[in-house]
Amino acid sequence: MKEINIADLAQYENQAITGFFAVSGKQVRSKKDGSRYFSLILADRTGQVDAVMWETDGAGDFAAGDVVKLRGQVCRYKEKLQINVERIRAATREEFDLGDLVPHTERNIDELWAELNAHVDSFTDPHLKALLRAFLDDPALAAAFKEAPAAKSMHHAWIGGLLEHVVSLVGICELAAKHYAVHRDLLLTGAILHDIGKLEELRWGTSFDYTVEGQLLGHITIGIGMIEKKIAALPDFPPALRVLVEHVVLSHHGKYEFGSPKLPMIPEAVLLHYLDDMDAKMQTMQNEFGRNVAAGRAAGEVTEWVRSMERPLLNTAAFLGKDKS
Amino acid sequence: MKEINIADLAQYENQAITGFFAVSGKQVRSKKDGSRYFSLILADRTGQVDAVMWETDGAGDFAAGDVVKLRGQVCRYKEKLQINVERIRAATREEFDLGDLVPHTERNIDELWAELNAHVDSFTDPHLKALLRAFLDDPALAAAFKEAPAAKSMHHAWIGGLLEHVVSLVGICELAAKHYAVHRDLLLTGAILHDIGKLEELRWGTSFDYTVEGQLLGHITIGIGMIEKKIAALPDFPPALRVLVEHVVLSHHGKYEFGSPKLPMIPEAVLLHYLDDMDAKMQTMQNEFGRNVAAGRAAGEVTEWVRSMERPLLNTAAFLGKDKS
Amino acid sequence: MKEINIADLAQYENQAITGFFAVSGKQVRSKKDGSRYFSLILADRTGQVDAVMWETDGAGDFAAGDVVKLRGQVCRYKEKLQINVERIRAATREEFDLGDLVPHTERNIDELWAELNAHVDSFTDPHLKALLRAFLDDPALAAAFKEAPAAKSMHHAWIGGLLEHVVSLVGICELAAKHYAVHRDLLLTGAILHDIGKLEELRWGTSFDYTVEGQLLGHITIGIGMIEKKIAALPDFPPALRVLVEHVVLSHHGKYEFGSPKLPMIPEAVLLHYLDDMDAKMQTMQNEFGRNVAAGRAAGEVTEWVRSMERPLLNTAAFLGKDKS
Amino acid sequence: MKEINIADLAQYENQAITGFFAVSGKQVRSKKDGSRYFSLILADRTGQVDAVMWETDGAGDFAAGDVVKLRGQVCRYKEKLQINVERIRAATREEFDLGDLVPHTERNIDELWAELNAHVDSFTDPHLKALLRAFLDDPALAAAFKEAPAAKSMHHAWIGGLLEHVVSLVGICELAAKHYAVHRDLLLTGAILHDIGKLEELRWGTSFDYTVEGQLLGHITIGIGMIEKKIAALPDFPPALRVLVEHVVLSHHGKYEFGSPKLPMIPEAVLLHYLDDMDAKMQTMQNEFGRNVAAGRAAGEVTEWVRSMERPLLNTAAFLGKDKS
Amino acid sequence: MKEINIADLAQYENQAITGFFAVSGKQVRSKKDGSRYFSLILADRTGQVDAVMWETDGAGDFAAGDVVKLRGQVCRYKEKLQINVERIRAATREEFDLGDLVPHTERNIDELWAELNAHVDSFTDPHLKALLRAFLDDPALAAAFKEAPAAKSMHHAWIGGLLEHVVSLVGICELAAKHYAVHRDLLLTGAILHDIGKLEELRWGTSFDYTVEGQLLGHITIGIGMIEKKIAALPDFPPALRVLVEHVVLSHHGKYEFGSPKLPMIPEAVLLHYLDDMDAKMQTMQNEFGRNVAAGRAAGEVTEWVRSMERPLLNTAAFLGKDKS
Amino acid sequence: MKEINIADLAQYENQAITGFFAVSGKQVRSKKDGSRYFSLILADRTGQVDAVMWETDGAGDFAAGDVVKLRGQVCRYKEKLQINVERIRAATREEFDLGDLVPHTERNIDELWAELNAHVDSFTDPHLKALLRAFLDDPALAAAFKEAPAAKSMHHAWIGGLLEHVVSLVGICELAAKHYAVHRDLLLTGAILHDIGKLEELRWGTSFDYTVEGQLLGHITIGIGMIEKKIAALPDFPPALRVLVEHVVLSHHGKYEFGSPKLPMIPEAVLLHYLDDMDAKMQTMQNEFGRNVAAGRAAGEVTEWVRSMERPLLNTAAFLGKDKS
Repeated sequence: MKEINIADLAQYENQAITGFFAVSGKQVRSKKDGSRYFSLILADRTGQVDAVMWETDGAGDFAAGDVVKLRGQVCRYKEKLQINVERIRAATREEFDLGDLVPHTERNIDELWAELNAHVDSFTDPHLKALLRAFLDDPALAAAFKEAPAAKSMHHAWIGGLLEHVVSLVGICELAAKHYAVHRDLLLTGAILHDIGKLEELRWGTSFDYTVEGQLLGHITIGIGMIEKKIAALPDFPPALRVLVEHVVLSHHGKYEFGSPKLPMIPEAVLLHYLDDMDAKMQTMQNEFGRNVAAGRAAGEVTEWVRSMERPLLNTAAFLGKDKS
Repeated sequence: MKEINIADLAQYENQAITGFFAVSGKQVRSKKDGSRYFSLILADRTGQVDAVMWETDGAGDFAAGDVVKLRGQVCRYKEKLQINVERIRAATREEFDLGDLVPHTERNIDELWAELNAHVDSFTDPHLKALLRAFLDDPALAAAFKEAPAAKSMHHAWIGGLLEHVVSLVGICELAAKHYAVHRDLLLTGAILHDIGKLEELRWGTSFDYTVEGQLLGHITIGIGMIEKKIAALPDFPPALRVLVEHVVLSHHGKYEFGSPKLPMIPEAVLLHYLDDMDAKMQTMQNEFGRNVAAGRAAGEVTEWVRSMERPLLNTAAFLGKDKS
Repeated sequence: MKEINIADLAQYENQAITGFFAVSGKQVRSKKDGSRYFSLILADRTGQVDAVMWETDGAGDFAAGDVVKLRGQVCRYKEKLQINVERIRAATREEFDLGDLVPHTERNIDELWAELNAHVDSFTDPHLKALLRAFLDDPALAAAFKEAPAAKSMHHAWIGGLLEHVVSLVGICELAAKHYAVHRDLLLTGAILHDIGKLEELRWGTSFDYTVEGQLLGHITIGIGMIEKKIAALPDFPPALRVLVEHVVLSHHGKYEFGSPKLPMIPEAVLLHYLDDMDAKMQTMQNEFGRNVAAGRAAGEVTEWVRSMERPLLNTAAFLGKDKS
Repeated sequence: MKEINIADLAQYENQAITGFFAVSGKQVRSKKDGSRYFSLILADRTGQVDAVMWETDGAGDFAAGDVVKLRGQVCRYKEKLQINVERIRAATREEFDLGDLVPHTERNIDELWAELNAHVDSFTDPHLKALLRAFLDDPALAAAFKEAPAAKSMHHAWIGGLLEHVVSLVGICELAAKHYAVHRDLLLTGAILHDIGKLEELRWGTSFDYTVEGQLLGHITIGIGMIEKKIAALPDFPPALRVLVEHVVLSHHGKYEFGSPKLPMIPEAVLLHYLDDMDAKMQTMQNEFGRNVAAGRAAGEVTEWVRSMERPLLNTAAFLGKDKS
Repeated sequence: MKEINIADLAQYENQAITGFFAVSGKQVRSKKDGSRYFSLILADRTGQVDAVMWETDGAGDFAAGDVVKLRGQVCRYKEKLQINVERIRAATREEFDLGDLVPHTERNIDELWAELNAHVDSFTDPHLKALLRAFLDDPALAAAFKEAPAAKSMHHAWIGGLLEHVVSLVGICELAAKHYAVHRDLLLTGAILHDIGKLEELRWGTSFDYTVEGQLLGHITIGIGMIEKKIAALPDFPPALRVLVEHVVLSHHGKYEFGSPKLPMIPEAVLLHYLDDMDAKMQTMQNEFGRNVAAGRAAGEVTEWVRSMERPLLNTAAFLGKDKS
Repeated sequence: MKEINIADLAQYENQAITGFFAVSGKQVRSKKDGSRYFSLILADRTGQVDAVMWETDGAGDFAAGDVVKLRGQVCRYKEKLQINVERIRAATREEFDLGDLVPHTERNIDELWAELNAHVDSFTDPHLKALLRAFLDDPALAAAFKEAPAAKSMHHAWIGGLLEHVVSLVGICELAAKHYAVHRDLLLTGAILHDIGKLEELRWGTSFDYTVEGQLLGHITIGIGMIEKKIAALPDFPPALRVLVEHVVLSHHGKYEFGSPKLPMIPEAVLLHYLDDMDAKMQTMQNEFGRNVAAGRAAGEVTEWVRSMERPLLNTAAFLGKDKS
């Protein structure tokens, strides 16, 4: 358990603290006398703070991307809190919990994982069940699936974000499969695998970024490749079903300009596209409502322009609540 | 009950029939000897057939758009069936059931209506419940709502189509309201009223068309006006709630180019937009799968290019079935 | 009459002044010793200036959006003028003229209003004349119409801007009605009412902003609602004419992406769309030419890129004048 | 004076006629016995009619594009009138008036020309006046200007159409120059010369088409070239004014996708773009209202979809008239 | 060798012929007496012709898509040649050369194949050379590569069209690799493999069409899968190089809306995209110039509007030739 | 030869220097005591540096845009190098070489010029050869051609950039003319003249900017005018060839939104458009790879988002090199 969170630093103003932080940025700068100092950006799951380290001689070896243990003074510079670092060293992997240092889901990962597996266990199509078991029972893949964010930024950009998004999407897909006469197992297979390529498109540690493969090929193409490999190991998998599974994943962005080279052509692909997009938008709205309040506006006020949705937003519940009072 | 359906004419080839038909088209043409004859297009809920009437002197007065009673011979001309009319007259409104003469929903209207009312009865918000009762208990409006198509052509373009679409949409909205933390009654109000302006945008009789008001103002603007009038009669209706109800209806097309002057800005409006569009697309796909088979292609084949969706489509169930055989 | 304008502050440098100003921004900040000070943005109709108030204990209660009376020193900080406030208090509504504190039209409001009414008096269509009288004779509405800006920013974003724009537009519409054979009273009705919804879409005081209703519904939908209410009180108003009046207002933005759910379909709507857009662009150009000179460029030079018009602009008269010299 | 117009052929059914017609199409076809016959399309300013000539041996030499004198029988084939030609020969240029054989303006060309010249005579800028005189006093150019259509199809696609459009545009520009403070002579120069390149972009005789130069360069580029040549012969023409005149012509389409490589950047160019587009749309609407009635719909009904305007249209006057009756 | 080509049928008018033809269409129709006849469309590499077979009793079993041997009379009906079939039967695969029956390249396939292999032999990168040998030495794949068209319609839509297009593209890529400092073998690998997925996207026999996999996944995704499989069998293939090869293929359409989910990000991908698009357009222009002349226009005239290029075209050489004469 | 380059200033830190610099910016500011000082931006071909001049009394007369000779101290302020100017005066045109003061091509101008002329000398078409000689032998034009940048910013934005781009483009066009059967001299004429209007669209001295004519007309229209003037002086120039030369130049941007009012309609125009765009993109990529390394990223890493190409980029060679190490 991390003891001091960046979000709580204000209560330590003018005090010394000791703790673990991720180093998001590290620059070496010169003082007027020509000597060097470190200008740092530190992060944990609750936020970011600037830091300086004036005496660098005693500093251990560390780089941007590392997690460090440090001791320093919390002070205020130009109205913003910052840490004057006195001692710093790279932390070892055993000393910290990555979940404390980067944003992560508020849901319980194990519960989400169990929920996901329960859906698969209820499949009636043996081929799709076998395909999904091949993914979920692959230890390396499962470990990654439990950690991966759903994006570098935007919706679900946190540890466990991909799993959280997939479980929510599978839930609404289950409901839709009761309402429309569709191939429920195929729809759920699409929901579970649609972003599977993100396990290789993104890398995450103390920050989230794209891999080179992710930038040059994208998660859809990577995901298709992963599915083809798993299916190649399932000799009885029907060829027609393989084409449909791949089509559902390939087309789930629903538009060429969003990177789907084919538009959804079967009912399950159409449902998956709409529900995936809708689920992401619902999460984005929750994020923005939180950000709106954090930025000091009333919860019931219209937000600033939200760029990813090209419009401002309004929190229904808060707005109506305000109205009544 | 209509006795002879156009879809069944083949079994009457070379026989005389008597029945009621809608006149979709009527042209007066000249024979080579200079005398006149009628070239007609007849329709009922099961389809269309060409007809000619060579001797027009005995014909009663009738026009395109009328329903007629006629007697004639079913014959084949250039491989297509047609009716050689011998006697024809305009029918009186009591003689026929409009439902027999134009395409209509396969669902039972009264059951759909009861289902819709049951949703409203379960509302917990008294204002929204009162608003919806004001609509559904208005006899003229209820009568129109039970008949109106959802479109001139495209999805749900049949008698009862609007009600059928609304009930399906309300159903999926109920499910979504269980999955996401939203104002369920507001979402359902949007689902029930989103196309209410179509009652005045469209006119339906023996064919479907736009009213002048429909063409110049559109169903969204008309619908907002209808809602404003009903709310004006509910003195306690909260002003903030009024703005939200109108916003949900106004924004449900989700894009400026589809005629929504505002984009969905609250969670309920975002859900309604996605689910409405999705429900319409699912119905379109069903229509196209039927049309594909009617056009003589195998059910499991990819369809021709579907213009309204800008892609060809594939019926999952039929395609996988074919594959197994 | 306001005595000291922000535009003239340079002549008071290093002197004490007393005056009324609108508070556009107010932030409480900490000095290094931990004590608080106010960082303010003050505005009047001639511009904006920064201010600080180091001793906040004696300050009366005031907030952003208020008008205040203050005494302070005009000084220069980092090459910019600022006011060091010594005393400040909220002003009462009687002490100031709002027109002095926010930008407003350079035209005389009463003359503009008389000009507008003269156009209406010359109407020959009794229904349209009655409709416009119902608007212009409504005291609350007339009061708002005389004050409202035409926009939050962009063209005519000043007190009286809406009226100024409408009068200019009515003028060019009168001329166009002489050149083309159209329904002059309908065209002028559209010109006068096209932006009437802005009276409720915008709010103005010491700054301009959108109302919640304005953001969720927009001025076109609001305006249609206002027109429907006025027409409902005119029992003989012809239904066909009502549809045309609403169509002209609804379609005046001319494109879906600009928030008109219908394109102009009648000649009067086509004229109104072009002339409204043209009048706004002509005003924008005048604004930009002024801004160009204020930014220190020569009047005859090409301006910087003007974002709202997606191009740079050139003042013909100034450019040709320069050329001759 | 042409004696028999195609629009009036019905009154000559089953009679022999003699007259002049333009040959829009000529095909040589084979009869079943192997002998040849001509299938022709004939046109005059009032319309088109099909013709056949069974005995071709006695036919003079003529081609599509020629004007012919012929004698034949008016008869009806498949409900359409056609002419069975008995004798035919190419007409000489002196025998016919081109105005009788292609659609042309209903206005008097000489009056339009005088009106245009009167505008120029009132110019106060000597350079622009000299430039326009150089154009209008050029005999070849003036002759072409009096004949040219404004388009191959679409608005003002008739002999004299360009002049008619220019005179209408100059008229509304005169009015706008009274309303806005602009360089009136520059605006009018733009109005008169904006389409001058069409004199070389189009060719007209018995039908309208593009020249190769018109297709490869377009009327804007051609027009700029014509203006440069005329200005080169006016040694004192101010260089800055030359750039503005060319800019006004270059930018008058107002959008890149309509072939203007620069957007209007000066007030006169902005006005010209809006008024030119508006004038063309007003003429298009008149054409469509006429076509709507000719197609058998009521004048007060909404028209079919008008492709060039991407919407249906409604004739205000006819619609309101219908409403009153 | 096929003896009688459809293009040459005119010289057999009124004679009996015997030959092999592809059946593009077959319909069973009824005569007035109720008996059946066949209405056929026959094709070979030189064109299409209609045929009828009045006496169907003696006809062997054949279907659309088959190649048949038939005997019949060449006659003329409504000015068009047609064949009255007297005897017909399905041909066996040994009796005909598919190349005679569908359009195919005018180039020699074996020479093209040798040229392609020569390029690969000159590779200096051992991994890319091994990858391409794995493709070109795969007998099934090589056989398909020598036959496949490059499209269902549009440019290179003929047997051998893919190979012809690839060889032309490789040629211009070789030249570009001399002009720009790029990875020549990577560029050529992209040129050779960019459309390799078309071997499974398209099917060709007596006509060209898409496979279901082609429609649901598209040739880019299919091609990536084929490349991944071949690379998986080359254990030393560098992972970074694999990503680049796949990126070059994935991005070669250059735009999202053309089905490339990633834009070209490396110099070789940028070159390949431009040169591939340019090579296809150059071929399209040649096709259109041929079609223009075939449609009866002069070679030096501007063509009709070419839909795939959204413009009309002009044959430079023919136009200048005409000019000189 | 310039002695001290801005890129090398670090080695003069805390030393006095004397040299020539272009003044990119000059502002007069006030010190706290009310006295004035100069804040300057100095530039040469290797970069930019800030400078201050505290004592302005002794300063000679100079303005932004001038080249100056100055003496000053190189020091560091807020981690950035700056020059404290002690003496400054405007330099005379003879004292400096403009090439030292603005970025310029790394190629030898005379060699590029010779290369360009050699291409023209090999022309076989006498008219095109005469046209190009008229351009290249025009001393004023040749002088400008050897200096002009190809753009204000973006690709080839340096002295000699236009010539460098043209020579590269002519080179790839020569290769393409060997691969495709086109009019080689026409293609090369287009390559040499396509941007000739930039000689008047841009102005360059110590910085690059647009002329007013450039902003109002653009380099394509200006270029067409220049070509028309040169051709007017070649009495035998074939009119058809003139139209083609102008078409090639007019259409070379390939899209309306990039300022080409006509799309390429002849093969040479299609080739020129693709190869010009491709050559510019290849140069842009080289620039961006350099900028990537200068910004401190590894050469083999993906770059930041490149706005002009709407994507990030990757240097193939560096990436593969990194991979091997």
